[in-house]
Amino acid sequence: MTYGRLGRFTAQPGGRDELVAVLRRAAEAMHRDPGCLHYVVGTSQEPDAVWVWEAWTDKAAHDASLEPPEVRETIAAAMPLIAGMSDVAELDVVGGKGLPEEHA
Amino acid sequence: MTYGRLGRFTAQPGGRDELVAVLRRAAEAMHRDPGCLHYVVGTSQEPDAVWVWEAWTDKAAHDASLEPPEVRETIAAAMPLIAGMSDVAELDVVGGKGLPEEHA
Repeated sequence: MTYGRLGRFTAQPGGRDELVAVLRRAAEAMHRDPGCLHYVVGTSQEPDAVWVWEAWTDKAAHDASLEPPEVRETIAAAMPLIAGMSDVAELDVVGGKGLPEEHA
Repeated sequence: MTYGRLGRFTAQPGGRDELVAVLRRAAEAMHRDPGCLHYVVGTSQEPDAVWVWEAWTDKAAHDASLEPPEVRETIAAAMPLIAGMSDVAELDVVGGKGLPEEHA
């Protein structure tokens, strides 16, 4: 089953742009991971809010993506920039537009 | 600016699968809309929850997508299946994986 997740980070006050930069570096690393279908970063009108929404070939691909040293370093860089997380959802992706055909 | 939106629908009790089917038909229609980059439908462990997350070339493309008669019909078909919406966010997409290069 195609695996999705999404959630809202709240950056430390004034730290939103730095957190966005770290998450965009994470997205760059995902380009080398064939199990990652989508990893999208966005901001909203809420101060300090950064949303990430993701689609993976399956949950195992997501879980494995957290293991490489460069990803652990990115997570370590992001942690002090994050004040909290909310609206976190793990999802069974049932289909849609923008996914590879076998996952749509 | 690439435009994103996401949100959680709560289906009427027992109506989740029917709502998913309607939203998948909506996603099919989006395949004919070049302004729609992503329109992904997923379910979670929460009973009756259906999430949709979207990316558009810009907000105007999203707003225009709601106008065609077939889309209005799909919205009308979905409305009686929906008990509520929550966690709705409008987003400035700053980049990521899975988007066309000029939006990534």
